[in-house]
Amino acid sequence: MDFVLSDRIANVKPSAIREIFKMAADPRIIAFSAGNPSQEAFPVEEIRRWTAEILEQDPILALQYSLSEGYTPLRQRIAQFLKEKYAVGSADDDILITTGAEQALDLVTKVLCNEGDEVLCEAPSFVGALNTFRSYHCKLVGVEMEEDGINVSKLEEALKTHPNIKFMYLIPNFQNPSGVTMSLEKRKQVLELSKRYNVPVVEDNPYGDLRFAGEAVPAIKSMDDSGNVIYVGSFSKVLSPGLRVAYLCTPKALVSKLTVAKQCTDVHTPILNQLICYKFLTEFDFDAHIARCSALYQEKYQLMADTIRRCFSKNVQVTRPEGGLFLWCTLPEGTDLMDFCKKAIERGVAVVPGTAFMMEESDVSTSFRLNYSTPSDERIVKGIEILGQLTRELLD
Amino acid sequence: MDFVLSDRIANVKPSAIREIFKMAADPRIIAFSAGNPSQEAFPVEEIRRWTAEILEQDPILALQYSLSEGYTPLRQRIAQFLKEKYAVGSADDDILITTGAEQALDLVTKVLCNEGDEVLCEAPSFVGALNTFRSYHCKLVGVEMEEDGINVSKLEEALKTHPNIKFMYLIPNFQNPSGVTMSLEKRKQVLELSKRYNVPVVEDNPYGDLRFAGEAVPAIKSMDDSGNVIYVGSFSKVLSPGLRVAYLCTPKALVSKLTVAKQCTDVHTPILNQLICYKFLTEFDFDAHIARCSALYQEKYQLMADTIRRCFSKNVQVTRPEGGLFLWCTLPEGTDLMDFCKKAIERGVAVVPGTAFMMEESDVSTSFRLNYSTPSDERIVKGIEILGQLTRELLD
Repeated sequence: MDFVLSDRIANVKPSAIREIFKMAADPRIIAFSAGNPSQEAFPVEEIRRWTAEILEQDPILALQYSLSEGYTPLRQRIAQFLKEKYAVGSADDDILITTGAEQALDLVTKVLCNEGDEVLCEAPSFVGALNTFRSYHCKLVGVEMEEDGINVSKLEEALKTHPNIKFMYLIPNFQNPSGVTMSLEKRKQVLELSKRYNVPVVEDNPYGDLRFAGEAVPAIKSMDDSGNVIYVGSFSKVLSPGLRVAYLCTPKALVSKLTVAKQCTDVHTPILNQLICYKFLTEFDFDAHIARCSALYQEKYQLMADTIRRCFSKNVQVTRPEGGLFLWCTLPEGTDLMDFCKKAIERGVAVVPGTAFMMEESDVSTSFRLNYSTPSDERIVKGIEILGQLTRELLD
Repeated sequence: MDFVLSDRIANVKPSAIREIFKMAADPRIIAFSAGNPSQEAFPVEEIRRWTAEILEQDPILALQYSLSEGYTPLRQRIAQFLKEKYAVGSADDDILITTGAEQALDLVTKVLCNEGDEVLCEAPSFVGALNTFRSYHCKLVGVEMEEDGINVSKLEEALKTHPNIKFMYLIPNFQNPSGVTMSLEKRKQVLELSKRYNVPVVEDNPYGDLRFAGEAVPAIKSMDDSGNVIYVGSFSKVLSPGLRVAYLCTPKALVSKLTVAKQCTDVHTPILNQLICYKFLTEFDFDAHIARCSALYQEKYQLMADTIRRCFSKNVQVTRPEGGLFLWCTLPEGTDLMDFCKKAIERGVAVVPGTAFMMEESDVSTSFRLNYSTPSDERIVKGIEILGQLTRELLD
């Protein structure tokens, strides 16, 4: 039988990242292509102890069906955590637990967008999110990034000329893939535009805790008194991505609709995993753990940045992120990016071509993304040396 | 801000079951409304040991990002299990791990149906599945159930008159909610019709292992040589629903598209949970465990059936399932079902009205679903006595 596929799925190609991730599973390849947190950052000992305690004390709770909204004490604890730490969330908001942040975006799209509606995104943006929007047959409206975040006047232009934009998808901290952090001024302007044009903001903040330089900038949602901001947080980068636990903080009326959508998707997020996250937030020194993770990432970032400075052609521009997992390198205009990425993998180094993060893969990009959190120090040096040699051969 | 919702989500009401499940969380209510496996059936000791071993031996594997298709050894083991136990799956098929069987149905719908397409269902059928189909704006075409499964001549009639049916959703074993098992003859006819009208079958088999009477009937997929059958299995009813691990066995070409859809939904099913299921399938005596579960369910079924015989008005018809979790009771034509269910909950007993399982909640039903796997023996007797008293007051 030849299955006839839906138009929406014909609209999505396999994620370039996931496919490269598979290729990079070959242990001989030095993979700068992942988006993985460092395995050294996992609190393995504690997760062992918490899991044993949960299965000792509350086995039935951990193994039976549970509520679609998520485990109530975890939702309450997250609300308290967001309020105390980031001034995020009000009495009008509620928390919904999701199976990873990708599911949060899936549910928001399912609930807010009809087919053919538009989603405004930073260009470039996280390919996983773009594919989720595509999978509901949404059109992507890209607005270019600058060094301090999205170009706000082009953002307003887009809102004016595209009346079917249902939300703006933004990653204000250490954006994936560019590493850029949106300035406070721009965050205020974005919120203002959201109100003026009545278009909600989806503020995706998976990396926000992992700041290793500069000063924290308030979340857009922390400045919102209009109920316009849908905030997405995750345990993937601060605890473990394999557990697949994330959350939405958003006005209550929307949570009830998102819960209906979640019932139709996976009924509830695995409850054992939620209980582990609950222990993480209640029985652990979060700040000390984050300080350890940030120090680790700073070290790895510094090593990669220093090696780039030493080895790359001076014709390559490189961003200077203040946190997160990614560096973004731009080759001179006119360079054949795919040729560069292909040569890199032939020499044993995987990077993600910038085209993967554009609204259309045919959009022009001469950038590529490097991840510094996953590879060992030795591989960071060796891989960057190989890429550096390549940049010098091609560009100098 | 008033969020403008998508048409598709406006199409779904909160699942009656999940809402009743919430109400039934009141410990004073005797809940025959759940679909939970018995907590006595969870191999708690073993899950404790397996989890400790995984986090001791493979902590990084269990906590890091993983492949969207699922953990490869688990996929291989499931393929072998299905082949040996049910003759399900061929060299053309592949396994995709999903976050519960609900997600399997979500992905299949996302990949096969455009908005407005039709899905053929047994009437009544599992409300969670119906809501998933609705959440993609599919129209539901219901075909009536008989004592030996779907009415096959009406099924053919529906296929003839509805050219936009993209798949048939069937639960051949101990159907939810009716408890009915489809006869071998009808399974063959269904497969024949699937080929003749080129409409795939989604064969959902969450309860198939939990047979406590009668003889096993071959899976539709075991008789399929045309690649027309998408088979859905789950660990929820045989191991633990809280872990949210299920799987699809379906032709390879479709698995690759479903994997793309899964990347857009939750990236991958939590890997710790998959590793626990792998231990369950490789280090445990599955048959002995299933024999224990089936004996437990038989005992509970028998207690409920005997108490019904003793207490219910003779004007109530009751199905005789050979396995699974549910009994289906039908009041005489013309009875006010919602009045009955409301009076039952006022007296402290929750049942699920049959209308919840119909294609439209406005469709007529005088049936209700009873679950015998969750309540204690004492509560089964007490709850059925209360319902029995009510049936006698209303019907005798």
